[in-house]
Formats: sequence, structure tokens, C-alpha cells
Amino acid sequence: MTKQHIISRQGVIYGVGLGPGAIDLMSVRADKLIREAKNIAFFRKSGRRGHARQIAHPLLSNNVVEFAMEYPVTTEIPSTDPQYNYILSDFYKTCCSHIQSLSDTGEDVIILCEGDPFFYGSFMHIYTRIQDVCPVEIVPAITGMSAAWTATKMPITWGDDILTILMGTLDLTQLEMQLRDTDAAIIMKIGQNLGKIKQALRSTRRFDDAYIVEYAAMANQTVQRLCDYDQEHAPYFSIIILHGQGRRP
Amino acid sequence: MTKQHIISRQGVIYGVGLGPGAIDLMSVRADKLIREAKNIAFFRKSGRRGHARQIAHPLLSNNVVEFAMEYPVTTEIPSTDPQYNYILSDFYKTCCSHIQSLSDTGEDVIILCEGDPFFYGSFMHIYTRIQDVCPVEIVPAITGMSAAWTATKMPITWGDDILTILMGTLDLTQLEMQLRDTDAAIIMKIGQNLGKIKQALRSTRRFDDAYIVEYAAMANQTVQRLCDYDQEHAPYFSIIILHGQGRRP
Repeated sequence: MTKQHIISRQGVIYGVGLGPGAIDLMSVRADKLIREAKNIAFFRKSGRRGHARQIAHPLLSNNVVEFAMEYPVTTEIPSTDPQYNYILSDFYKTCCSHIQSLSDTGEDVIILCEGDPFFYGSFMHIYTRIQDVCPVEIVPAITGMSAAWTATKMPITWGDDILTILMGTLDLTQLEMQLRDTDAAIIMKIGQNLGKIKQALRSTRRFDDAYIVEYAAMANQTVQRLCDYDQEHAPYFSIIILHGQGRRP
Repeated sequence: MTKQHIISRQGVIYGVGLGPGAIDLMSVRADKLIREAKNIAFFRKSGRRGHARQIAHPLLSNNVVEFAMEYPVTTEIPSTDPQYNYILSDFYKTCCSHIQSLSDTGEDVIILCEGDPFFYGSFMHIYTRIQDVCPVEIVPAITGMSAAWTATKMPITWGDDILTILMGTLDLTQLEMQLRDTDAAIIMKIGQNLGKIKQALRSTRRFDDAYIVEYAAMANQTVQRLCDYDQEHAPYFSIIILHGQGRRP
């Protein structure tokens, strides 16, 4: 608790993980916070309702005050372009100053986070900018990958299995090296990287064991062996799974 | 759904993840299933109340029927000894035949699982033995590692960070190789392996960045930099965390 907090009775900013998407896979703590929320904030693509907002929808009170944080860019500019960093940094700064102004007037704010807030989440960019100026509490959540391995109906890791979590945005050599040195693996951010990921799985002889889960724990969930998957690109909510085969009595 | 299920109206076996330990970090789905449970089953060490049982305690009805599955061995016999495998295999078989007998008489059984059922869990040994003979449903949960990184108040992974999950039971060379090739890391099963883990972190120059969390999300949670940790062995519920430092605007 900062000195400022004690003096001015700032509101608390809650980074609340919503989990993989099914409303009853939210934690009891998250469910309660969202039902009682007076202020919510969430990210969304411009022109969309926002996935986090949609998950939380049935729990929200009628008079909740909403702050939609609309990404100024998503994939229009490559993330390696300095312009991308500049635009996003400015966007996060603007979001944070609004959130901080709510906190400064004593209002609690529930920030709705898909998955777990500290696991590859956009909320982290808000967090690092407000953690020293507002009281913040984080509510962890079930990750999308947990819902994905559950959907395959096979345990992900046994005994001393090593599990490596990889982004499809890594280059081919890195993917191959990592896949060679692990027992179990999760690959996210598939999208346009599907061809490269398949190549890495083939060259490390792991292609035939891979599964792909689309929309884990959502109404339109599908589970397929990757070798039966005939899409050229995978939707944003897809996860590739390689199960560990470790020690078991 | 198996043919047998349709004919005999077997009860459903639920592998229900309890999450890291705080009762309100359980999912809404798990909370409801446990409150309504007529039969529960759980693992415990001989002579203990059982950690899973203790977490679920406040939610259980007075007339719930309990099946405590007491491990015949834990660390008395090394897991590499064939005798260990034989004893455990026999133990799981006995547990499963009781669970299946409940299912066969139409009873649903809630198996209480610490953490996430498919992530290094004992439940998996029951699951593989009953999945073809009983209807089974799995409820994923917040992992202990998620609670641990939340406790450190620092995000675990950013952008394209690679996250590797390692057991302290791996040998020194494997630990070193894995730590050298990853951005973020989680190390579990620390116990007697703490000295070896520290050595691997030192030789890969990652020791100063490591945190250790004991009892994440439980009443006695502690968070320390590993270099300030003066215990020789760590308790069962301890997790070492190396945070990723990936791309962030």
C-alpha cells in the first residue's frame, strides 16, 4: 500500500482473469467481483463488442460504467516497427490516465482480462504503468491452454515431464530447437504461422502426435489431430498441444 | 459415451480441479459440483486429513460419502525401483475398482484434485484406468504456478517469451540446458532438490532473478527472492519463478 493510497483513499484496480471463456470456469472470486462491479474496463478491437466484455456480460449490473479500451492497431503495422511501439505506448498511457483518475476519486475498477492476467495478457501493459500509483489486485484464472488440454481428454504432463510453452511467432529454428528438447509443448499465436509450425513439428518428428484445439471451453470448441486439420490459417483462439508421455505406474 | 453407459445408466466420475488452495479461486463449476456432491474421493498421505479434502471442507454437505485414497508409499521407496511401480499400480487399481463400482450403481463421484487435474496430478492415474469403463468429465482449474506468479506481483510472460516448466527432480545438466534456452521458467518439486536447482540457476546466471513462493494463494503464502531464502529444503508447496522480460511497448 503506497502512502498516497492511505491519504487519498484511492479506489482499487482489479486485474480480474476471466479464464478460457465458459462463464462457470471463472473463479468464485472473479464472479463476485464482476457481479458487484460499478466500473469495468476491457480491451477490444475497434468496431467489435470485445471478447472479455462478452464473457462477463451475464454477470454485469444494469448500471455498470464501461470503459472500452480500443486498440489503435492490431496487425496493420508489424510489431517490429518502432511506430507500432510508439502508437501502443501512447494508447496504454491514455487508458491508464483514465483508470488512475477513477481510482483517485475513490472508485474501484474491474479490468476484465481474458485468460490469466499475468500470462501473455494485454492487461500487463496497464499494470506496469499503474502499479506504483494505484493500489492493484490481481485475480489469477484458468488459462486457455488448460482448457485446451482438458478438451483433448488427455493429461498434458506426467512425472518429470518438461513442458514448454511457445508462440507460433518464433522463427523456425527456435521452434525446432525447443520442440526437440521438450517432452510436452503448447503452441499459441498460431494464425498465419501455421505452415511454419507444421514444418517445425514435422522436422522434429512430432507432427503425428500434435492436436489442435479451436475455441477451448467455448460453445464452438473443436478438437482435431493436427494431421487432420485442413485449414490454412487457424483462428485466434487456437492452441496446439503435444502431450507428455512421462513416468506412470 | 460408451455403450455400457447408455445401457446401465452409470454415474459420472468428475475429476474436479480445486485450484491453488484459496477456496474462492475454485471455479464456479467446481464450487457447484462439490456443494452438490453425494460421493467424493481424494488422495491423502496415510495419517493425514488430506490437503484436497481440507480445501473442499467448507463446501461439503453433512452426509457426503467419503472415499479417502491413501498412498501406500510416497518417498520411502525411490520411484525408479520396480517395486514402487508395482505397489502404486496395485493401489490405483484398487481405488479404481471402488470408484467404478459406485459408477455402476448409478452414483456420481467427485474426485477432488489439487491444482489442475491434467497437470502433473495423481488423478491422471485414476483417469487412464477408468476412462474406457465409466463416463468421465474433467473440470480444469487455476494451477499452483499461476497463483505463484500472481503472488510475485510480476507478469510471467510477455510477447513471444518462451516459458519452460521444469521439475526439480531433473538432473543438473538437464536443468542447466533448459534454463539456458528459455526466457521464463517455473520450477516445481523442489524439496530436497533445492541445492541442485540453485546450482543450475547460478551456472546459467539466472540465480539473482529467481523468486521462490511458498504456499501460493494459501493463508501462509510467502514470496522471497531465492538469494534471500535461507532454508535448506523447501516445503512441498513451493515454486521457483523466473519471469520473462519480453517485448513490451
